[in-house]
Amino acid sequence: MHIGMIGLGKMGGNMRERLRRGGVEVTGYDSNPEVTDVATVKELVAALPTPRTVWVMVPAGQITDSVIASLSDELSEGDLIIDGGNSRFTDDERHAQELTAKGLRFLDCGVSGGVWGLENGYGLMVGGSDKDVAELMPVFDALRPEGEREDSFVHVGAVGAGHYAKMVHNGIEYGLMQAYAEGYELLERKDIIKDVPGTFKAWQKGTVVRSWLLDLLVNALEENPDLAGVAPWVEDSGEGRWTVEEAIAEAVPMPAITASLFARFASRDTDSPQLKMVSALRHQFGGHAVKKA
Amino acid sequence: MHIGMIGLGKMGGNMRERLRRGGVEVTGYDSNPEVTDVATVKELVAALPTPRTVWVMVPAGQITDSVIASLSDELSEGDLIIDGGNSRFTDDERHAQELTAKGLRFLDCGVSGGVWGLENGYGLMVGGSDKDVAELMPVFDALRPEGEREDSFVHVGAVGAGHYAKMVHNGIEYGLMQAYAEGYELLERKDIIKDVPGTFKAWQKGTVVRSWLLDLLVNALEENPDLAGVAPWVEDSGEGRWTVEEAIAEAVPMPAITASLFARFASRDTDSPQLKMVSALRHQFGGHAVKKA
Amino acid sequence: MHIGMIGLGKMGGNMRERLRRGGVEVTGYDSNPEVTDVATVKELVAALPTPRTVWVMVPAGQITDSVIASLSDELSEGDLIIDGGNSRFTDDERHAQELTAKGLRFLDCGVSGGVWGLENGYGLMVGGSDKDVAELMPVFDALRPEGEREDSFVHVGAVGAGHYAKMVHNGIEYGLMQAYAEGYELLERKDIIKDVPGTFKAWQKGTVVRSWLLDLLVNALEENPDLAGVAPWVEDSGEGRWTVEEAIAEAVPMPAITASLFARFASRDTDSPQLKMVSALRHQFGGHAVKKA
Amino acid sequence: MHIGMIGLGKMGGNMRERLRRGGVEVTGYDSNPEVTDVATVKELVAALPTPRTVWVMVPAGQITDSVIASLSDELSEGDLIIDGGNSRFTDDERHAQELTAKGLRFLDCGVSGGVWGLENGYGLMVGGSDKDVAELMPVFDALRPEGEREDSFVHVGAVGAGHYAKMVHNGIEYGLMQAYAEGYELLERKDIIKDVPGTFKAWQKGTVVRSWLLDLLVNALEENPDLAGVAPWVEDSGEGRWTVEEAIAEAVPMPAITASLFARFASRDTDSPQLKMVSALRHQFGGHAVKKA
Repeated sequence: MHIGMIGLGKMGGNMRERLRRGGVEVTGYDSNPEVTDVATVKELVAALPTPRTVWVMVPAGQITDSVIASLSDELSEGDLIIDGGNSRFTDDERHAQELTAKGLRFLDCGVSGGVWGLENGYGLMVGGSDKDVAELMPVFDALRPEGEREDSFVHVGAVGAGHYAKMVHNGIEYGLMQAYAEGYELLERKDIIKDVPGTFKAWQKGTVVRSWLLDLLVNALEENPDLAGVAPWVEDSGEGRWTVEEAIAEAVPMPAITASLFARFASRDTDSPQLKMVSALRHQFGGHAVKKA
Repeated sequence: MHIGMIGLGKMGGNMRERLRRGGVEVTGYDSNPEVTDVATVKELVAALPTPRTVWVMVPAGQITDSVIASLSDELSEGDLIIDGGNSRFTDDERHAQELTAKGLRFLDCGVSGGVWGLENGYGLMVGGSDKDVAELMPVFDALRPEGEREDSFVHVGAVGAGHYAKMVHNGIEYGLMQAYAEGYELLERKDIIKDVPGTFKAWQKGTVVRSWLLDLLVNALEENPDLAGVAPWVEDSGEGRWTVEEAIAEAVPMPAITASLFARFASRDTDSPQLKMVSALRHQFGGHAVKKA
Repeated sequence: MHIGMIGLGKMGGNMRERLRRGGVEVTGYDSNPEVTDVATVKELVAALPTPRTVWVMVPAGQITDSVIASLSDELSEGDLIIDGGNSRFTDDERHAQELTAKGLRFLDCGVSGGVWGLENGYGLMVGGSDKDVAELMPVFDALRPEGEREDSFVHVGAVGAGHYAKMVHNGIEYGLMQAYAEGYELLERKDIIKDVPGTFKAWQKGTVVRSWLLDLLVNALEENPDLAGVAPWVEDSGEGRWTVEEAIAEAVPMPAITASLFARFASRDTDSPQLKMVSALRHQFGGHAVKKA
Repeated sequence: MHIGMIGLGKMGGNMRERLRRGGVEVTGYDSNPEVTDVATVKELVAALPTPRTVWVMVPAGQITDSVIASLSDELSEGDLIIDGGNSRFTDDERHAQELTAKGLRFLDCGVSGGVWGLENGYGLMVGGSDKDVAELMPVFDALRPEGEREDSFVHVGAVGAGHYAKMVHNGIEYGLMQAYAEGYELLERKDIIKDVPGTFKAWQKGTVVRSWLLDLLVNALEENPDLAGVAPWVEDSGEGRWTVEEAIAEAVPMPAITASLFARFASRDTDSPQLKMVSALRHQFGGHAVKKA
C-alpha cells in the first residue's frame, strides 16, 4: 500500500510516521520544506500508484476546500481522496458531490487521539461506500491501536457520517473536560481539601470517573500543581459549535455540552456586555454600586 | 397608627417617608445619627403606643438576628415585630419561635421596588397569622402603590411564606435580567445592528417583552449608551442562591435562573481554576498552545 | 395611503383592521375566501396605486419565499415589498438581492404584540433604506401604539436588521417566560405557599419583576388556577433556535436563553434517549435498578 | 488485622469479600440474616480485638446516624469507627464531635467503584488524622486495586474531607454521564448515522473520550442496543445535590454538573408546572394552541 498525505503538521506528521511504522508507504506533501517529501502536489500525485489514494490532513474550512479543489485537478478518474481533518459533515457532502462529478472517489474520516496518537494509535470514524472503505482498511489498521478492530475503528455510514461522529465525539469531549474542571475548581476552593492533585491521582484506578482525560489532568497537575501561568482563556474549534448547532437542528436538549461551549466563550468575553448590563440594571433598580472598570 | 422602624438606609429611609406621607406615624431608629429619630432602641420602644409594632429593615443574617434579639428584650408581651428585610425564610421560622416564647408576635414581609418604591409604592408579600396581618393592613396599604390591593399585596401563608415568595421573586428577577442582558450582548456584537439603545427603547410599548426592567435598561443606555466604565462584575445577594438551593431541595429543574446565578459567579471568578484546567487539558491531549497569564 | 396585504391570519387580519382604523386603506389577499378582499394576487396588485406597497404576513420559510417570488412577478419596477413575518434575517438578505435584480424594493419588519396588537398596537423593528422606511412611516405609525414613536418603532439598520432585532426579542421572550415559569414551579411545589395565583397577582404593581408577560401569567392563572388540562409540552418556533445559532456564530455565551430553548425540546422528548442512557449507565456501574418503560 | 463491618448490601458485602481475599479478617453484621456473620451489633463488638475498628457501610443520613449512635454505645475508649457510606461531609464533622466526646475515633472514607469493586478494587478518599489513617492502611490496601497506592488511595484532609472528595467525584460523574448521553441522543437522532453502538465501541481505544464509563456504555448497548424497556427516568442521590449546594456556597460556577442534575429532576417532573406555564403563556400572547393533557 502506498498513499499520499497532504498536511504534515502535529497530526499529519505523526500519522505519516505511524503509517510507515505499520508498513504503509507514504509520500507526504506540506508547504513547509522541512517536513515535506516532495516539492509540489503534482510531484506527490506523480509518485503514487494508480488508482491513487491521497489523505488530506489540513485545517477544516477554506484550506481543506482549496486543497481538495487543487488536488482533484491533478488526479485521474478512480482516484480517491480521504479527508481526515475536522471538516464539518456538510462540507463532506459538498466535496463528495464535486469529486464524483470528476470521477473521483471520496471518504471522510474523523481521527481522534491528539499528539498521543503516534504512540497509542488513533480512534477512527469513517464515512463512505463499503467498497472504498474496504480498500483503505490496511491504512486504517495501521493508524488505529493494536487489538480488536471494532474497539478503535467504525464505518459509521455514507460520506459525512465519519465527521459527524467525530463532531459528536468532540462535543462529548467538551462536556467531559468541563465536568472535571468544575470539580477541580470546587476542590481548589474548599479549605478542608488538603491535596487536590493527590485526589485526582487517586481517581485513576478503581473509581467510576477514571478515564484517559483524567490521566491527562493528573499529568497536568504533576507538571504544574497550581496551573501557574495558565490564563483562564479557552479557545474553541468548530466541532463544539457544530455539535450544538446540530442539537438545535435535531431538537435535542444538550445542556451540559452547551454549557461547556459557553464557558469557553465567556472565558474570552473579557469586557462582557451582558455582565455590564446586569450590573447596570442592579444599579438602576436597587441603587447598588457598580464596580468601575 | 404609629409604628417604629429600625434601619433607615436606602430602603428603610424611603419607607419611613412613604409611610408618613400615607398617614402612618413612624419613629425611626438607625445607628447613623443623621437619619435617626431617637438615640436608642429603648427610646424608640418608649415612644410607641402599646401593643407596639416595630418594622425591622436591616441586612439579612447576623445583623437582623442581633437587632431582633436586642429589640425583643425591650418589648412587652403582645408587641409585634415585622421583618421587612431580605431574610431567608428559615430565619423567619427561627425568629418566630424565639419571639413566641417571649410572648411576642412576628410577621415577615418581602418588599420589592428598590429605590423607586418611595415614589411608586412597594410590592409586598407577607407571612404570618391572619389576625396580625389584618392589624398591620394600614401600614401595608400606605407602603404599596395606589389601586387594587391585590395587585401589590399578598398574604402568602404562615410565617416564612412572605420571604419565600420574595426569594422566588428575586430568583425570577435574576433570570429576567440575564435574558435581557444576553440579548443585549448579541445585538451589541452584530454588525448589522446600527442602533442598540433605540431597539430596546422601541420595545417599551407594544412588544411582548415590555417590562419595568426593560424601562430601566433603556434608562441605563440613555445615561451611558456603551456602559462605559462599568466593570463586567456582578454581585449576588442571598436570594438568588437560596432560590437555587430550594430548587435542589424540591427537585425543581431551574436552568435559566441557575444560569443567571452562575454568570454572576463567573464574572467574579477572574482567575478561574476551571478555565485554566480546560486550557491545560487541551494542551495535554492536543498540544494546543495555552494562553499565558 | 393604500397598501396591499397578503396573509390575513391571526396577525395579518388584525393588522389590516388596525391599519384601516388608522386611516390606511388596505386591500387584503388570503387563500381563505372568508377573509380575503380579492380573489387573486393579480387582483390585489391591480387594485393598488403605483408605486405599489405590499405587506407580506405569512409563515416564515418556504411559504414566504414562494409568496414573495410569485408576488414579485406581478409587480412593476419601483414597487415595494415588506416582509412582516418572522423570517430569518438571512432570508431577508436573499430576498432583497432577488428583488433588487427585478427593480423592486424590499423592507423587513419584525412585529411584536401577538393577538393583543389590534387593540394595543404593535412594536415594530424595521430594516431597509432610509428612503423606503420614510415612505412607509404612515403605515408604521398606524400599526404602533399611540405615543412617542421611538417607544414602539425603530429603524434598526439595513435589510435584515429588523428581523434580527425581532429574533433577539423572541430569544429574550423565551428567557423571560422560562424565568417566570421556573419560579412558578417552585412556588407550586412549596408547601408553605398558600396562594400562588395571588402571589403573582401581587407582583403586578410595585415590584421589580412587573411586566406584560407577568400580567398575562396572572390572566392565565385567573382563567385556570391549576393549569388543569394543559400538557407539559411546549412548541418552539424558528426565532429561539436562530438566536442560539447566532450566539454560537458570534461567540456570545447565552446560557439562560439556551436553557429555555432546551426546556422546550425536552418537553417534547418524551422517550428521551439521553435519559434512558443515564439510567442504563447507573445500572451498569452501581447496579441501581432501572425504571421500566 | 481484624475489623467489623456493619452493612452488607451491594457495596458492603463485596467489600467484606475483597477484604477477606486480601487477608483482612472481617466480622460482618447486617439486619438480613442471610448475609450477616453475627446476630447483633453487640456480638460483632465482642468478636473484635481491641482497640476495635468498625467499618460502617449503610445508607447516608438517618440510617448512618442511628447506626453510629448505637454502635458507639457498644464501643470502648480508643475504638475507631470509619464511615464508608455516602454521607454528607457535614455529617462527618458532627459524628466526629459526638464520638470524640465519648473517647472514640472517627474516619470518613469515600468509596468508588460500584458493583465492579470486588473484582477491580475500589478508589478510596479518606478524611481523618494521620495516625488513624496509618493504622487503617492494611484495610485500605486490601480494598484498593493492586499497583501504586497513590493511584487509588488519597488521604484528603481532616475528617469530612474524604466524603467531600467523594461528593465532588460523584458530581463529576453526573457530568460525564450527561455528556455521553447527550452525544448518544444526537447520534441516535441523526439519520446518516448507521451504527450508534459501533461508534461508541470504536471510541474505546485511541480516542480522547475513552473512559471506564464509556466501556460501561458500550456494555449497555451490547446488552440492549435500543435501550428497549428502559424508562427515561433517572434517580439522583445526595451527592449530586450537595455538589451543587457547595458550588453555591463557594460561588463556583458549575453549569455542566448542575445541568446534569436538573436533567434528572426534569426526567421525573412528568407533569411539569413550568412547562405548562410556558405553554399557557404562549397561548396568552400569541393565541398559540395549548396541547391538551
